[in-house]
Amino acid sequence: MHFRLVDAASRDNGAARLMSVKFETDPARYRHWKLETERDRARLVMKVDEAGGLSPGYALKLNSYDLAVDLELADAVTRLRFEHPGVSVITLESALEGMFCAGANIFMLAHSDHGFKVNFCKFTNETRLAIEDAAANSGQHYIAALNGTCSGGGYELALACGEIILVDDRRSAVSLPEIAYLGVLPGTGGLTRLVDKRKVRRDLADVFATLAEGVRGERAVKWGLVDAVAPRSRFNEAVGERVASLVDPKRAGRAGIALDALAPAESEAEIRYRHLTLRLDQARRLAELMVAGPANAPAIPAAAAALGADFYPLRLFREIDDALLRLRFNYPEIGLVLIKSAGGLERVLELDRALWERRDDWFINETLLMMKRVFKRLDLTAKSFFALIEPGSCFAGSLFELALAADRIYMKADVEGRIATGVLNAGTFPMGNGLSRLRTRFIGAPTRAAALEPGGRFDAEAALAAGLVTAAPDELDWEEELRLAVSERLSLSPDALTGMEANIRFAGPETMETRIFGRLSAWQNWIFQRPNAVGERGALKLYGQPQSPQFDYRRT
Amino acid sequence: MHFRLVDAASRDNGAARLMSVKFETDPARYRHWKLETERDRARLVMKVDEAGGLSPGYALKLNSYDLAVDLELADAVTRLRFEHPGVSVITLESALEGMFCAGANIFMLAHSDHGFKVNFCKFTNETRLAIEDAAANSGQHYIAALNGTCSGGGYELALACGEIILVDDRRSAVSLPEIAYLGVLPGTGGLTRLVDKRKVRRDLADVFATLAEGVRGERAVKWGLVDAVAPRSRFNEAVGERVASLVDPKRAGRAGIALDALAPAESEAEIRYRHLTLRLDQARRLAELMVAGPANAPAIPAAAAALGADFYPLRLFREIDDALLRLRFNYPEIGLVLIKSAGGLERVLELDRALWERRDDWFINETLLMMKRVFKRLDLTAKSFFALIEPGSCFAGSLFELALAADRIYMKADVEGRIATGVLNAGTFPMGNGLSRLRTRFIGAPTRAAALEPGGRFDAEAALAAGLVTAAPDELDWEEELRLAVSERLSLSPDALTGMEANIRFAGPETMETRIFGRLSAWQNWIFQRPNAVGERGALKLYGQPQSPQFDYRRT
Repeated sequence: MHFRLVDAASRDNGAARLMSVKFETDPARYRHWKLETERDRARLVMKVDEAGGLSPGYALKLNSYDLAVDLELADAVTRLRFEHPGVSVITLESALEGMFCAGANIFMLAHSDHGFKVNFCKFTNETRLAIEDAAANSGQHYIAALNGTCSGGGYELALACGEIILVDDRRSAVSLPEIAYLGVLPGTGGLTRLVDKRKVRRDLADVFATLAEGVRGERAVKWGLVDAVAPRSRFNEAVGERVASLVDPKRAGRAGIALDALAPAESEAEIRYRHLTLRLDQARRLAELMVAGPANAPAIPAAAAALGADFYPLRLFREIDDALLRLRFNYPEIGLVLIKSAGGLERVLELDRALWERRDDWFINETLLMMKRVFKRLDLTAKSFFALIEPGSCFAGSLFELALAADRIYMKADVEGRIATGVLNAGTFPMGNGLSRLRTRFIGAPTRAAALEPGGRFDAEAALAAGLVTAAPDELDWEEELRLAVSERLSLSPDALTGMEANIRFAGPETMETRIFGRLSAWQNWIFQRPNAVGERGALKLYGQPQSPQFDYRRT
Repeated sequence: MHFRLVDAASRDNGAARLMSVKFETDPARYRHWKLETERDRARLVMKVDEAGGLSPGYALKLNSYDLAVDLELADAVTRLRFEHPGVSVITLESALEGMFCAGANIFMLAHSDHGFKVNFCKFTNETRLAIEDAAANSGQHYIAALNGTCSGGGYELALACGEIILVDDRRSAVSLPEIAYLGVLPGTGGLTRLVDKRKVRRDLADVFATLAEGVRGERAVKWGLVDAVAPRSRFNEAVGERVASLVDPKRAGRAGIALDALAPAESEAEIRYRHLTLRLDQARRLAELMVAGPANAPAIPAAAAALGADFYPLRLFREIDDALLRLRFNYPEIGLVLIKSAGGLERVLELDRALWERRDDWFINETLLMMKRVFKRLDLTAKSFFALIEPGSCFAGSLFELALAADRIYMKADVEGRIATGVLNAGTFPMGNGLSRLRTRFIGAPTRAAALEPGGRFDAEAALAAGLVTAAPDELDWEEELRLAVSERLSLSPDALTGMEANIRFAGPETMETRIFGRLSAWQNWIFQRPNAVGERGALKLYGQPQSPQFDYRRT
């Protein structure tokens, strides 16, 4: 079978298409959040600029958010970890009176095309998981201080916090009105966190998630929707008490490092970072991520943070993160990404060992956690990835993890070629399922994974025998085999590939995280295609207009 | 907001609509399978009648199947358990030369509406899980004897068997060509069973699932796709050896019972079974399942099978199963099902205790397993369920499990009213997640579940306090509260409800089963809506036609 690219005219009609999103920002440029730190605690205050949305055409009223708002939040969560490591408690607050957050902006959702909606939800989900990761692994605890109504995505943001305190004023409620008002799910983890994280009883979750006006006061505590309520007169005091009980003054003295701008050089054909080049062949729908290995393996000083933002792995993985987000949002037609590397195998392993030995240092810990999150971002990117291992590449240890995250690994059978596993492949970078990529790869043969964990070096033959690579064509076949594999991949239905990858990348145990991306998101994506939501008479489409939605009531 | 029902004209254009599927059949009426039993073993031979599909408009060539074929298979799997309990090994075979099964009929899929496709896949998934359940819990082992090519749904059927033996003739392959040819997933558990059950390495699964021609011979064994291959000359012998090694001659003497026809009385307003009445208010999109409790609690004789198909719980749950399937396929617009019961609380508990005490008897075991599967069918039915507990109802033990499976439980606060938990609520009927409904309900508080497991009787107040019911309105409020709850439920988007229920019904652990229904099916449903599959130029739509599909290559 042969396929042709559909032309632009046949695409979603009238859907706003965002052409090029930039993901880098910094607090000085925030339009929607204020980050205030004070020694061991911080306040992250939401005051959304109505006119500051990513696209024109909607106003971000009542602290509703779009991607522009959420990427500032993501930035703040990351900077708190690196720039303010002394902070151990962060309160999420709203600067509005009686309104915490109205959730994702509905007009933005109603006017976005399907792919943007899906990617927007994925990104916001990742941001909320980063909040939970900060609490679990960096000791930075988030408290949602709900000074007013908190609905939809606003409540889902609160659910990502370790504690939720709601003002009790006979008016302020937490609510998930998506189903009742919009005909879609609370898809930013809401349904999953209700029953999996907060363990709300399923029938109460059912009532709550279909009750547009939500639940307030003591009932919200009783149902497990919030942890505590406090009257307005005591609200700040109650929040303050919880902050005081969670603060860890021991770490208050840690000095952070500044995360500088990545500022890559951009052209139509490539985005060139310091250690990474993203090459784009848009006509072929093919991209290449070329990673440059470390120039040296620096000794890590006693105060590791002195290495700063220039520290190779931190810089590289911030670059990879930025490249992945650009690929998702700005290059939807790119279907396949080839991952390559060039550099010294031994230097990567040396650096990995140094990281491992100093993992108790807060800065090294944060660097490893950043790497972990970027690998997960790759796992969750709806593109195919093939790792290509050629002579001169440096797929060892942490960089080999990039190959393990890929859908296939092609290694050129060459006497010089080597790959290596190392100490960081043994669990430092768990996938969303909680297992290392080696353990997931050999889910049926844990002893094979265990045998690889102490580390080892492999030429193509040994790598093939160990199950570390998918194929190892020799010099004669390499070009042709890759050409076929690439062109075949690019000919397949992009939707079927997305669905396939979402199913086979994550063997093994499920966690709240995999349920959010695997189950909740898949159902939401389905609903985001249904006429009952997005058709001309669909509930999402008609929200805020005088007409009532018309449903096809057949249950599917 | 107010909603109106869309009129028929605005529905999926030109999609074939099946009006009334009957699910009961028996071997004498099979058109597509031959069931041959011989003491301790059986052969289930597929020879699909091309003209025997459920609808006109497609021919079931090459042992391709539609619902008519699969409901015979489901019937055979059930009858083997009850009618042929002496059988311990079943070989799945094909009567065609060089062709085991071509999978689900593509023309049927291409011309079915979305809801039918989704329900068809769900039913076929349940059938395959019933095969695995028979092996795990009834000691009836299935061997897929692949005498020829086995593709798509055919291979997914083989994956449900405990063993797969493939003929090695340099031609016959196992394959999942859905992605390459149709732009959809192998959605009958295929992707999940590859990586979760057979633990095929993810990169090999990736290659296999995108390789239309599949994999044959030794490579299929090496990749873990089949358990053994045998040349044509030795094929029957190889299969026979495996049968001989699995057969359990000890059980060969068991005499089965005949499953008679349910033959309910049907009208437009109701389907009346012996112990169950399904009332249908199609104008309101509301149904009622009224269960009559047992008339008595019979002593179970030494040879329990003497009770036969008239045995109350067996009969009742076969009736509930039939009613649920009819609701799914024949009444798509019914959105809410009210579950009621009438009878004696104590008699249900007595019967439950008798079942529990005799659970080692093969017939009682089969009856309990049937009940378990029916509860799961309820869990997986895309309708809302409210259990209504009124004076005179008999929601105790196994019948209370129906309420626990519902989305909400309303109990009338009345001095006479009682519900009861009993021995069968403590794990006899696990959900797909492997936990009892009590354990799932109190997922955050295992001690609360444990406290209920020894059994207890509860009036409304106590039931509310124990978390066993959602609400307990008193006599004055009952009518009005229910009226509101029902009309509110029926006003909501059916798609959002389906997605919500799929997420909050299944808290707790995930299993292969929940991954099939929660993750794989959700992605497939999404793909089944995408223009790349079902649009005018979609791959599924155009299969078998000269035109090539045209894809919108944007990755979502």
